Amino acid sequence: MTAHLPLGPGAEFDSIRSLLARWGPRAQGIGDDAAVVDVPQGTKLVVSTDGTVEGVHFRREWLTPEEIGWRGTMAALSDLAAMGATPLGVLVSFTVPTRWRDPLGLIAEGIGEAVARVGTTVVGGNLSGGDTFSLTLTVLGSAARPVGRGGARPGDRLWVSGNLGGPNAALRAWETGSSPSDTLRQRFARPEARLELGRWCADHGATAMIDLSDGLRAEAGHIAAASGVRCRLETNRLPVWSGASVEDALEGGEEYELLAALPSEVRAPPSLFGAAWSPIGEVVVGSGSEGGDLVILT
Amino acid sequence: MTAHLPLGPGAEFDSIRSLLARWGPRAQGIGDDAAVVDVPQGTKLVVSTDGTVEGVHFRREWLTPEEIGWRGTMAALSDLAAMGATPLGVLVSFTVPTRWRDPLGLIAEGIGEAVARVGTTVVGGNLSGGDTFSLTLTVLGSAARPVGRGGARPGDRLWVSGNLGGPNAALRAWETGSSPSDTLRQRFARPEARLELGRWCADHGATAMIDLSDGLRAEAGHIAAASGVRCRLETNRLPVWSGASVEDALEGGEEYELLAALPSEVRAPPSLFGAAWSPIGEVVVGSGSEGGDLVILT
Repeated sequence: MTAHLPLGPGAEFDSIRSLLARWGPRAQGIGDDAAVVDVPQGTKLVVSTDGTVEGVHFRREWLTPEEIGWRGTMAALSDLAAMGATPLGVLVSFTVPTRWRDPLGLIAEGIGEAVARVGTTVVGGNLSGGDTFSLTLTVLGSAARPVGRGGARPGDRLWVSGNLGGPNAALRAWETGSSPSDTLRQRFARPEARLELGRWCADHGATAMIDLSDGLRAEAGHIAAASGVRCRLETNRLPVWSGASVEDALEGGEEYELLAALPSEVRAPPSLFGAAWSPIGEVVVGSGSEGGDLVILT
Repeated sequence: MTAHLPLGPGAEFDSIRSLLARWGPRAQGIGDDAAVVDVPQGTKLVVSTDGTVEGVHFRREWLTPEEIGWRGTMAALSDLAAMGATPLGVLVSFTVPTRWRDPLGLIAEGIGEAVARVGTTVVGGNLSGGDTFSLTLTVLGSAARPVGRGGARPGDRLWVSGNLGGPNAALRAWETGSSPSDTLRQRFARPEARLELGRWCADHGATAMIDLSDGLRAEAGHIAAASGVRCRLETNRLPVWSGASVEDALEGGEEYELLAALPSEVRAPPSLFGAAWSPIGEVVVGSGSEGGDLVILT
């Protein structure tokens, strides 16, 4: 059921009304000072906020308006996936310069497609003017046992989802003045948050989990630093996106695959929920310094 | 207890580390992909997001960096007050141009003062570059019985907190090239979210509640529209800020007082939790059109 309160008059409300008309049942209960959300008993609230800024996270010519909305939403939802959480709702805060008013409906369409894809809804938000377009997504989720990045233990196996390096290869193409292939462009523009996989990992005793928004090397370093261990990655086992390099796969970020530490006895098929699922290394005893502690085996 | 995970390397993390050092125990549990928050059993999650954009919501010369942080945080918390909720935590998303890097610590100080003032903490956030400074605050709260704006019934009395019109008078001074008095400037720069008062109203059976960020006339119209009633306001009963006009009090927004509809039998003292508390009208039968339905008696 969609239950919106009637909104008052004024231009801001006209814009909000047109967003709500676009979202239809993909938005719920908008119109009060705050959204009211039921958090299932026995679970904890898991919440994250993520910003997409024009000229920083993308250039306008790289992405269609729908893709800007989709990508920003999936990037935020990926943080819930990395905790093993189930989405409860999304809040959308827009800063919209005049020149971005026309595509706003299509950006909202991309957000609507993304929330529908993962079975959640827009529950609130904010709309403001400003000189730079930005989109801040706050994602709410719940988990009985949220998985952080600080619990990896020596002996755990490290697994990664998907084939890595595609978004970095796409960025390199754009930044050197050429165009990525359609497949590579789609890989950058249409990420999927690995929510089902994240829950599978939580259910199978994952001791640490993180998404790859900052790239595999950096993120493995975060797990190492937070867990007080060393991560050994075997680069010859890395699943690399066709057309990308091992360097792209190791250093490139901007992708929303998961890196998880699982007890060594956990067995998994080579693909889960439509994504490749690869063992790429192990957790060993180490100093866990602030800078992380990583051994890259080539 | 402050429990932060060690962060990995990199410039973004250096900035985050310096914010965390500034906040000390006023930030908690930062460092995972998402924050984990306990929502007390028997309550609902109440959540709102609010943006403060340079050049739209304030000009840099009007406010000190601490005041930018304080005001943005209290403005967002005011939405929890208007639902009768108790804060559980705050997420802070910054977009920071190079020229704003120096004052960032002082802005964070203002945020820290505001969260400490209301007994909550920063539980997460995001930091990004960009051309325009903005601050998006997402506030999490809980309430056993959240109060929306759609439940006002004919016969209810309308109450308002504080003395109104000060922020509008301050804005008028700045916009006509003069300077507001110190007291008036403080009134704009240092609002207080009326959280205790909001909970008092919820506990006393408030049927509708809203904050005055868009001004009394507009907000009373929102209650009327959402509740399908008419609001009668008696302007000669309006508590007006010294030096402001009735017009400022009725039309000016940018202030964070509460307007509540309470059952007529509820009695209250003329001041509650340090703020004036004034009966200013009543709810009557009306059409509750989209544009609201308001009778202003002068």
